[in-house]
Amino acid sequence: MSRIAVFPGSFDPVTRGHEAIVRRALGMFEQVVVAIGQNTGKSYYFPLQLRQEWLSQVFARDAGVSTLVYSGLTVELCRSLGARYILRGLRTAADFEFERTIAQVNRQLAPEIETLFLLSSPEFDALNSSLVREIHRFGGDISAFVPEGLSIPPPTGQ
Amino acid sequence: MSRIAVFPGSFDPVTRGHEAIVRRALGMFEQVVVAIGQNTGKSYYFPLQLRQEWLSQVFARDAGVSTLVYSGLTVELCRSLGARYILRGLRTAADFEFERTIAQVNRQLAPEIETLFLLSSPEFDALNSSLVREIHRFGGDISAFVPEGLSIPPPTGQ
Amino acid sequence: MSRIAVFPGSFDPVTRGHEAIVRRALGMFEQVVVAIGQNTGKSYYFPLQLRQEWLSQVFARDAGVSTLVYSGLTVELCRSLGARYILRGLRTAADFEFERTIAQVNRQLAPEIETLFLLSSPEFDALNSSLVREIHRFGGDISAFVPEGLSIPPPTGQ
Amino acid sequence: MSRIAVFPGSFDPVTRGHEAIVRRALGMFEQVVVAIGQNTGKSYYFPLQLRQEWLSQVFARDAGVSTLVYSGLTVELCRSLGARYILRGLRTAADFEFERTIAQVNRQLAPEIETLFLLSSPEFDALNSSLVREIHRFGGDISAFVPEGLSIPPPTGQ
Amino acid sequence: MSRIAVFPGSFDPVTRGHEAIVRRALGMFEQVVVAIGQNTGKSYYFPLQLRQEWLSQVFARDAGVSTLVYSGLTVELCRSLGARYILRGLRTAADFEFERTIAQVNRQLAPEIETLFLLSSPEFDALNSSLVREIHRFGGDISAFVPEGLSIPPPTGQ
Amino acid sequence: MSRIAVFPGSFDPVTRGHEAIVRRALGMFEQVVVAIGQNTGKSYYFPLQLRQEWLSQVFARDAGVSTLVYSGLTVELCRSLGARYILRGLRTAADFEFERTIAQVNRQLAPEIETLFLLSSPEFDALNSSLVREIHRFGGDISAFVPEGLSIPPPTGQ
Repeated sequence: MSRIAVFPGSFDPVTRGHEAIVRRALGMFEQVVVAIGQNTGKSYYFPLQLRQEWLSQVFARDAGVSTLVYSGLTVELCRSLGARYILRGLRTAADFEFERTIAQVNRQLAPEIETLFLLSSPEFDALNSSLVREIHRFGGDISAFVPEGLSIPPPTGQ
Repeated sequence: MSRIAVFPGSFDPVTRGHEAIVRRALGMFEQVVVAIGQNTGKSYYFPLQLRQEWLSQVFARDAGVSTLVYSGLTVELCRSLGARYILRGLRTAADFEFERTIAQVNRQLAPEIETLFLLSSPEFDALNSSLVREIHRFGGDISAFVPEGLSIPPPTGQ
Repeated sequence: MSRIAVFPGSFDPVTRGHEAIVRRALGMFEQVVVAIGQNTGKSYYFPLQLRQEWLSQVFARDAGVSTLVYSGLTVELCRSLGARYILRGLRTAADFEFERTIAQVNRQLAPEIETLFLLSSPEFDALNSSLVREIHRFGGDISAFVPEGLSIPPPTGQ
Repeated sequence: MSRIAVFPGSFDPVTRGHEAIVRRALGMFEQVVVAIGQNTGKSYYFPLQLRQEWLSQVFARDAGVSTLVYSGLTVELCRSLGARYILRGLRTAADFEFERTIAQVNRQLAPEIETLFLLSSPEFDALNSSLVREIHRFGGDISAFVPEGLSIPPPTGQ
Repeated sequence: MSRIAVFPGSFDPVTRGHEAIVRRALGMFEQVVVAIGQNTGKSYYFPLQLRQEWLSQVFARDAGVSTLVYSGLTVELCRSLGARYILRGLRTAADFEFERTIAQVNRQLAPEIETLFLLSSPEFDALNSSLVREIHRFGGDISAFVPEGLSIPPPTGQ
Repeated sequence: MSRIAVFPGSFDPVTRGHEAIVRRALGMFEQVVVAIGQNTGKSYYFPLQLRQEWLSQVFARDAGVSTLVYSGLTVELCRSLGARYILRGLRTAADFEFERTIAQVNRQLAPEIETLFLLSSPEFDALNSSLVREIHRFGGDISAFVPEGLSIPPPTGQ
């Protein structure tokens, strides 16, 4: 049987933390689908096309990683892909509370799908996309926080 | 002396967790007032009228439960009703931190009013209104999360 | 119907935080039973007799408060007293996690008994009996942490 | 390549929460090794032989689950078994903090071994072995907390 | 060498908690710079000029405290001022998680700058600016939460 | 005026986390006193003499760091040294809750003494002495967790 995991997020932008989680999960799964959630009515900082390009570039050499864009419920995406696992990274206790609630709801909506947690590596604990956006917005250098080699646009003038 | 408790919230929508807290509180109080906070400047997902109808329907047979709409400070509502208790449900440690801050401020504003906490039942831990809204928005089935028998409108097209 | 709440603990020693919780609960219940858990195989810092005397002294003028010693399960004590409520104070998020687990187990053992939480007042947040014992052991003055008027023995020489 | 996960614990006693985690992990791994940590200098409530028998009985029909006893570092056990995964259940935010620390140390000791977390099911949130022991010690009925069909000895007289 | 600490925030409004942190820090530093972060694209409740006036008034007699307005990254402000310390108050565990993430990012951006934490006094635990704004918006009296002597405008009609 | 900070602990053993906190605090204080709490009735894993030697060795070249052994209340030690600051490291939210309680009690016992918190560096988050002891007890290599160059005795046979 095929083992597929979905790694959902908005990746606005992808961080070194995301990159590490996907790489570490690769040993466990045949396929890891990095799924960019795109919801009407939510606004994003980096344009969708750029976020897609970044993910493709980061995992270009990782056989077993694919990228896609979806909207709607994550469990519906899993079902349509035949994926039985949702993969999530945990950084802090606050993360945990939030993730637990979502995982319990997903389990009620789709009991056959399991949410699996990996711990972020401590050097990436501080890395969450919203902070990285904040630094970028103020003109700070975010290259240490995103995967190597990404080309980052300058902040749009405030 | 009359024992009245106010159970404030936006009930957007009412959940099975809310329903259980009110029922469990009924043994302790003569009256439980389910109070829908309605604030200008805040936007809600379900219209006020629907939220009111739902609450009336859920507690139709529970003598001792009444429903009302208010705006402004919860402690002022309590004073105007002669209620000495604010009732709150606790689900997670994050809830607790948030509720503690509010309860301490309320105590400073109105020392004669006590905030009482009941624990949510574990099967309802994942139930918070904002997640239920999210599922509804994406076309998911929310009937397992709200009290039985509510008629739920279809999501407005995105 | 009679409304009785049990406030269980080891009260080793009773603190100003305990005192405040019991007083605040008195408006809600006809009787608050302060129940000293005494378990073989656990050791206590202050002798049982002293802990009992302290509690009797603290609540001497509070009609509606009684004190007793018990061993075994708290829910069994409640049943034997006809008490339908267990009363607990919450200070910190760590408290909450601990209390939630115990309350859920109690609910499974005795679904008819409800655990009710009051928030400790912020000026008593730091007050837990184990810290008070520690200060006493090192010869510190604990009179600001325990109810007024208790006579405290000197620490036994280390 | 063989996928083996180690599920370490003292299982004093095994709970329904443990049982559920192992079952849910079976889809992900070819083998789940339930490993009873037995350390000199630590005392246990139920005798080792009973804890072993219970685990064997619970997983008797689950091909892919084996049970063993070990002492020493969990990462050393993993290495000797060729297991690349440590499996852990998460219940509360307090659990998470504790587990994170241990997982980070294990990662430093053995970077090739990954710790994987599953969320406990909400109905088992309150289930931790130390509470179950406490209930047993006081003569309470623990059959709802441990897997079905285990024969439980009466508490030793206090 | 000069010891300068920056105390950043939006001070919307300044609270008694802020006031206490600055006063307590004065013994440690030669200068405490209270820095009002003002970011385009974020909206504030009280106008900038009022927030500035309030801070000047509160610390008028505290030699060693100065007030300024900045936008952009806090670490850049520190560098331009020659400040080696960022000062923050901690109230709750949720605060801590949030502050830890920011402090780690700041350390990565500017390793020579240290973030120092003081604990809020328990009587100010409930005081956070967003709650104070909420009370003001609903016409409640906020004078007990802000430093003495501030003149507070009435809420703008809802 | 002299600025002295006390860094209390049992240092059983000293970790790289402790080492980093002291070094980072050196810029802020003229003297940092590393104070080994030694309490009758508590048992330690490494002998006192070894813990003292380790600390002396680690900070041998850091002018401004001294080491001493004390028993009793930390605030009493501070008073006898003329130290106005207690220095503590924070790693996790659980740490925070624990430290907050102690700091509040210390403030009540000695309002003139301030507790100051530094955040542990993320690479040391997993480092707490009790885990290091556990690894040592099981024969694991702890050299990556303690300061460089310490000579570590072999574990005493179990």
